[in-house]
Amino acid sequence: MRTIYVVGIGTGSPKHVTIEAIEALNRADVLFIPDKGAQKSELADVRREIIARYVTKPDARQIGYAVPRRNAANPDYGQGVNDWHDALADIFSVLIADVPTGGAGAFLVWGDPGLYDSTLRILERVSIPVRIEVIPGITAIQALTAAHGIALNRIGEPVTITTGRQLGPVQIDSVVMLDGQLAFLEADPNLQIFWGAYLGTADQLLVSGRLGDVAQDIVATRNAARERHGWIMDTYLLRQPQ
Amino acid sequence: MRTIYVVGIGTGSPKHVTIEAIEALNRADVLFIPDKGAQKSELADVRREIIARYVTKPDARQIGYAVPRRNAANPDYGQGVNDWHDALADIFSVLIADVPTGGAGAFLVWGDPGLYDSTLRILERVSIPVRIEVIPGITAIQALTAAHGIALNRIGEPVTITTGRQLGPVQIDSVVMLDGQLAFLEADPNLQIFWGAYLGTADQLLVSGRLGDVAQDIVATRNAARERHGWIMDTYLLRQPQ
Repeated sequence: MRTIYVVGIGTGSPKHVTIEAIEALNRADVLFIPDKGAQKSELADVRREIIARYVTKPDARQIGYAVPRRNAANPDYGQGVNDWHDALADIFSVLIADVPTGGAGAFLVWGDPGLYDSTLRILERVSIPVRIEVIPGITAIQALTAAHGIALNRIGEPVTITTGRQLGPVQIDSVVMLDGQLAFLEADPNLQIFWGAYLGTADQLLVSGRLGDVAQDIVATRNAARERHGWIMDTYLLRQPQ
Repeated sequence: MRTIYVVGIGTGSPKHVTIEAIEALNRADVLFIPDKGAQKSELADVRREIIARYVTKPDARQIGYAVPRRNAANPDYGQGVNDWHDALADIFSVLIADVPTGGAGAFLVWGDPGLYDSTLRILERVSIPVRIEVIPGITAIQALTAAHGIALNRIGEPVTITTGRQLGPVQIDSVVMLDGQLAFLEADPNLQIFWGAYLGTADQLLVSGRLGDVAQDIVATRNAARERHGWIMDTYLLRQPQ
């Protein structure tokens, strides 16, 4: 039996990693580094930086693998994701075969493995039996509220975590992740927004205010940053005014 | 001006702390340790353990303070919380006056300072001007899903974070925190539940299954554990079956 550590590494700062994550990475014989192409090479660089800083196991190997692109043109979103997971499961099976029997491998997962990440679902489809251990990591939600110095929830009130695709009317507080379509442009302009990108890194960007006042500022900031980096990861909280 | 670090420490395992948290704790001249009474002394012990393991600054002082109890008998929940925050703000003002001018203090916050925690709100009421820096921490939500080895969300679907008091019908996935009233007993028995207590610690307890099948098991496990420890912190995810 092989052990696979699914390790949350936070949102881009090597200092987001926990002691538990560092210990898990140091138990791995093989560390898997996803490569999402030249434009997103910074995402692989953060993982390599984390390994360089904290992994002291002398014989640990790093194996890079190319991440196939999901077919975003598939009109059936669920089927598109399913096909993509199948393709990744084939890749994971090959990667895991490289872990010595009785040994351990580790996937370094952006944010937390439980939140809008596919690694656990893909591992369920892998052909080799593995024991899975999940190490929690700092999510973009915590990095966002910490950077703005705010609480996520009102006292005793609920919070919705959702995607740009699914954003409906905001009850009290809604956090939006994975929003490539700028869903905030369709939301009530009287909401407050707390927006952040590249959270936790030296390139962190923050904008907050009344949505109607700052929405275009966010669009412009976002476009300029994506042009500069070649990629963007952003998150925001929409809040009913008190 | 004084700096106050509001540091998320995770849910009970000293290994939940991040490198960023350790660095912030090591910049503090004074570390504040809440004391919630003899029954909950384990909660203060975890903080002292984290300081003992990771704080190397030789002249850092630890100051304990007694946390007053919120008047749960106040029929106006909001007013009861407001009065309690006022009382704590007076205590915080005294504590912060003990930080040297130009120096730094640190509050060690269970979980993450943004999620169902009052420290940031209380600091807004403190009479001494301070610069606040928030360090994100692992929440019980991530500790729960990691321990169960599950994703928090369905693919592309939203998640609700709520309290026992506010738990209504579960749309897809709802995480319930701060549930002293066992709100799950009133929920649809066909839901799946993933329950956990003392998450991340050696005393971690996990129960999962169809709610109708395991609800009484959770009640019994919870009661026995609370009797043994003198306190309990538990969290659960309710999920519509697929």
